Amino acid sequence: MNYAIGIDIGGTNTVLGLVDNNGSILDKETFSTKNKNQEEFFSAAFNNVSELIRRNPRNKPDGIGIGAPNANHYSGIIHNPPNLDIGCAHIPTIASQYTDLKIFLTNDANAAALGEKMFGKAQNMDNFVLITLGTGLGSGMFVNGKLLIGHKGYAGEMGHIIIDYNGRECNCGKKGCLEMYVSAKGITETVKEFQKELPDDPLINNLIDNSLKDMQLGLSHIDGRLIDKAFDNKNQTACNIYNFTSQKLGQGLAQVATMLEPEAFIFYGGFANAGNRILEKAKENMNDNLMDFQKGKIEVMLSELPEGGAGILGAASLVFNTL
Amino acid sequence: MNYAIGIDIGGTNTVLGLVDNNGSILDKETFSTKNKNQEEFFSAAFNNVSELIRRNPRNKPDGIGIGAPNANHYSGIIHNPPNLDIGCAHIPTIASQYTDLKIFLTNDANAAALGEKMFGKAQNMDNFVLITLGTGLGSGMFVNGKLLIGHKGYAGEMGHIIIDYNGRECNCGKKGCLEMYVSAKGITETVKEFQKELPDDPLINNLIDNSLKDMQLGLSHIDGRLIDKAFDNKNQTACNIYNFTSQKLGQGLAQVATMLEPEAFIFYGGFANAGNRILEKAKENMNDNLMDFQKGKIEVMLSELPEGGAGILGAASLVFNTL
Repeated sequence: MNYAIGIDIGGTNTVLGLVDNNGSILDKETFSTKNKNQEEFFSAAFNNVSELIRRNPRNKPDGIGIGAPNANHYSGIIHNPPNLDIGCAHIPTIASQYTDLKIFLTNDANAAALGEKMFGKAQNMDNFVLITLGTGLGSGMFVNGKLLIGHKGYAGEMGHIIIDYNGRECNCGKKGCLEMYVSAKGITETVKEFQKELPDDPLINNLIDNSLKDMQLGLSHIDGRLIDKAFDNKNQTACNIYNFTSQKLGQGLAQVATMLEPEAFIFYGGFANAGNRILEKAKENMNDNLMDFQKGKIEVMLSELPEGGAGILGAASLVFNTL
Repeated sequence: MNYAIGIDIGGTNTVLGLVDNNGSILDKETFSTKNKNQEEFFSAAFNNVSELIRRNPRNKPDGIGIGAPNANHYSGIIHNPPNLDIGCAHIPTIASQYTDLKIFLTNDANAAALGEKMFGKAQNMDNFVLITLGTGLGSGMFVNGKLLIGHKGYAGEMGHIIIDYNGRECNCGKKGCLEMYVSAKGITETVKEFQKELPDDPLINNLIDNSLKDMQLGLSHIDGRLIDKAFDNKNQTACNIYNFTSQKLGQGLAQVATMLEPEAFIFYGGFANAGNRILEKAKENMNDNLMDFQKGKIEVMLSELPEGGAGILGAASLVFNTL
């Protein structure tokens, strides 16, 4: 049996796990990412690594895998992720101050795709796209059984393919990016747009009121579970919100499928919990936007890896994998 | 030295060549594809194969590679290509009536990409997209040093990514496909649209008149060389036509680059002769539609493989390659 430590760096929390090469998480630690500068953050991370190693003397890890937002697989650099205060960090340099273990880095969506390939639904798939739905929309792709990294490590930005050239402004500087429609951020924009048309709609007002409360708690997005519940009760506004979202998602899936023709799109992440409320219609919309001979051949499914666990498993896979 | 026969099936002519594994074409044959039914077509093709073998007794080929429109790499089937009368053809079955040589099939754009990888500008590239510009727009992609075929062999349909959801009707059934803007077919539509705005423009009328004459000759598209010439003479309408085309192409390149981040887009085919008149501006437009960290890293270039030759070389590469 081989062991590895997987670190999943997120905007709110960072989760670490000691994992074996069957995909079991033997031990786990979590610490808050918020308001930590670079030194504070990595000091906390590697203290937790030491703690995991200390507690599991019989399961010595072969290395440490890290999945992080804005991380470059080739250069080993995390580039100033918008929701963290760690700035730009060259991971091999920093890690060498704390550990002799081998370090592997990739972006969080690539790590999730690796986890899915090693331990999830994609174990028998050579061509698939993993989509992480959370605050934003990330993607990791496998082509011919290998992770698609791109020439310089910047591939897989499906959240920033353009769905509407005159659409919503994205903070990447472009307009109409898929992420501005399909993500917690995107749904929030959709609800705000609906509010203009439907100022007296009870669901919309409830969503906005709750979101204002959440903002005081440091959160800034609509609570998707409220929409899920209303959708399940056949609330028309909730259906309209999710139908609109499904249409945009279907268009995005079709753009990618037209080029890559994967076996499946697999969804993972908090917002993916909306699940088939969005995915079934998105699949229909994808097929509407494909050529006849591509239609009906591509699966759209939810990951079954545990939330929070897949990030660790994926990051740890960097150590195990020869993919 | 190894030898192979490459067959490039086109809508007008089919070209065959005996090729060595250095990329030299030792001998060549051409026959008209027009108005041949399936039996007539393959009988002509394999007669030409026999002729090439007879004429070159010292250069015995290891196999035959075929590049064809609507060909499926996995199934060995050519699916009813719109400009040919050969219907649906299962190549291994048909070929077995004529030859004992091993047969390999892929679509024409994949074949061109293979040719570029084996003998052209992409020899040192692991990640690139080859775009064939002719009547339509085709694409073949390399990812991690291997051809991207897709799960069922239907990947690489860059001509059918959607640039404008309310745009021109494509004969694939969708609206606003890239091919309807960037290809001989697309430019023809653009000239027709310009004619509505500029009914007295001398260039537009000249282009339409010439195209009507060509139609009597069985051709149906605008003569791109006339636009090239006018563009070089700084004719404003020609500049506007190509600027419009570059803008759409740039948007298409950016969609693909956002996902794949290739090292280069390489252009090949008759219409690609317009060359830097279109590609320079298309590159600018691509960068305008990319995220900051992806900008300026992706090359846009013309293939230097000989027109007509690359198809043969690419098809022959199917026999040599272990890519």
